[in-house]
Amino acid sequence: MSDLPRTVKVKEVGPRDGLQAEAATLPTEDKLRLIGCLADAGLKEIEATSFVSPKAIPVLADAAEVFAGLDRRPGVTYSAIVPNEKGARRAVEAGADEIQVFLAATEGYNRSNVRMSVEESLEQAARVAEVVLGAEIPFVAVLSTAFGCPYEGAVAPERVLELCGRLIGIGVEEVTFGDTTGMAYPTQVGELSRAYGERYPDVPLRLHFHNTRGMGLANVLAALEAGVDRFDASVGGLGGSPYAPGATGNIPTEDLVHMLHEMGVETGVDLEALISCARLLEELLGHELPGQVMKAGICGHLTAGAS
Amino acid sequence: MSDLPRTVKVKEVGPRDGLQAEAATLPTEDKLRLIGCLADAGLKEIEATSFVSPKAIPVLADAAEVFAGLDRRPGVTYSAIVPNEKGARRAVEAGADEIQVFLAATEGYNRSNVRMSVEESLEQAARVAEVVLGAEIPFVAVLSTAFGCPYEGAVAPERVLELCGRLIGIGVEEVTFGDTTGMAYPTQVGELSRAYGERYPDVPLRLHFHNTRGMGLANVLAALEAGVDRFDASVGGLGGSPYAPGATGNIPTEDLVHMLHEMGVETGVDLEALISCARLLEELLGHELPGQVMKAGICGHLTAGAS
Repeated sequence: MSDLPRTVKVKEVGPRDGLQAEAATLPTEDKLRLIGCLADAGLKEIEATSFVSPKAIPVLADAAEVFAGLDRRPGVTYSAIVPNEKGARRAVEAGADEIQVFLAATEGYNRSNVRMSVEESLEQAARVAEVVLGAEIPFVAVLSTAFGCPYEGAVAPERVLELCGRLIGIGVEEVTFGDTTGMAYPTQVGELSRAYGERYPDVPLRLHFHNTRGMGLANVLAALEAGVDRFDASVGGLGGSPYAPGATGNIPTEDLVHMLHEMGVETGVDLEALISCARLLEELLGHELPGQVMKAGICGHLTAGAS
Repeated sequence: MSDLPRTVKVKEVGPRDGLQAEAATLPTEDKLRLIGCLADAGLKEIEATSFVSPKAIPVLADAAEVFAGLDRRPGVTYSAIVPNEKGARRAVEAGADEIQVFLAATEGYNRSNVRMSVEESLEQAARVAEVVLGAEIPFVAVLSTAFGCPYEGAVAPERVLELCGRLIGIGVEEVTFGDTTGMAYPTQVGELSRAYGERYPDVPLRLHFHNTRGMGLANVLAALEAGVDRFDASVGGLGGSPYAPGATGNIPTEDLVHMLHEMGVETGVDLEALISCARLLEELLGHELPGQVMKAGICGHLTAGAS
């Protein structure tokens, strides 16, 4: 455990993945207030929105308005996620700093999510690549159900690695393994992360965990031990899972940052300021969020020598 | 990570540590129904109650009645926790199968909890030892605030290890490190567990984590990697922290067992039956519990090859 990365890159996905799971639509100005708060707390990567069909996800229908309204902080990457070429064109036009294409490793989940086969999504990804790389914008990908699928169960690691190869082949500069339904467990995370690193040492791996079955931070620990230093998280633990009513969503950004800081891993995030963002979000939404550190307080304030 | 223990002993502490945090008092017959359900689910160690002052903790005032009413399942150890000699005599008389003395590693917490200095608690522990060992009942100890104290902050590992030595000196057969206020973090857990194992290789270590800051199962993972194979947990995550209103309590037993089974670590627990206990407990209490797997379902049912 002495070999944990010294610094970790945390991408805040609350404004997209988190809000997407909310029943109510936050007004654009509230989204912008949240994004500004997060940037001020030191988060350097913020997934601002998604360019998908407004009919499919009405709460993110204001994607272009969000980008138009951003009060950009220096050094912050405001990214967008897209399922297809049309979304990519809209994201480029809106001024996204980074564009992430998404697809699932399993047919059942991909069809349910974007109504395409995995092969069709890969074809779309290639067209997205042309648009995004043509515009000289960083191009990354997320592969969901990499650790298991609610429809198909276990997913063969070789299948996941093969899909990574195809994504890298079309120009993807970073791959995220998504565990949207909270099926990943620590030994699996360690093994798949190591296998990826051996196969694709030049393309960074990012991990996106949900805390659906309570293992979110345990999976982060296993990944850190395998050398992974990029994680997604959602402020306050905003989000949820359509597959598990009542279960919590993404790992809370402040709980992730808190654990990392306690272990001496740097993130560049001001944890107190981040907790204020989570509190702001509770106010904006009018309900409680599942984050724990926002309720229990920061240990480092009590612990001598902690960062 | 390939060196995880093959089997883990899970002690269910919901009927004591969990219920202690509840505002309402569960009738004795409901406690007995819960304990019966847990034993039927395969839990072999159940902390049934605490012999403390009924004035201090009214919800556990029926400790003797609980033991008198037990429908004992073969092979199950029904234990009790005590702060002093008086509690030990009551626990022996009631028929406890194992008696655990408790004290804190820090003065501030110990005084707040049992109104004694740590030295006074150690003197009581010696008297408890005479009573318990004299009755030929297994004698164990829990040292709380081993990973940090809400009043005093960081706790020196050497202080913790020294107190362990004194407890072992009076005949303690197993030591539990308690993290009642959820301040432990994974690297610390790994280091302290390894240091304990080197110093006291013949006296097993057990760990008792709360999920107050979301790190409960991450701490379990770090402990497993350090060779620890005994953990406390509370069904449904029943419990809480008087130091962190709104925060969750003990790690949920079914979330712990789920993670262990996913990783191929055996517990002897029937996870579906255990989830039924958590649901029963929600009914008995009339409110939701923080356990995640009880809401999201068992992954193993979807994952080929999982236990």
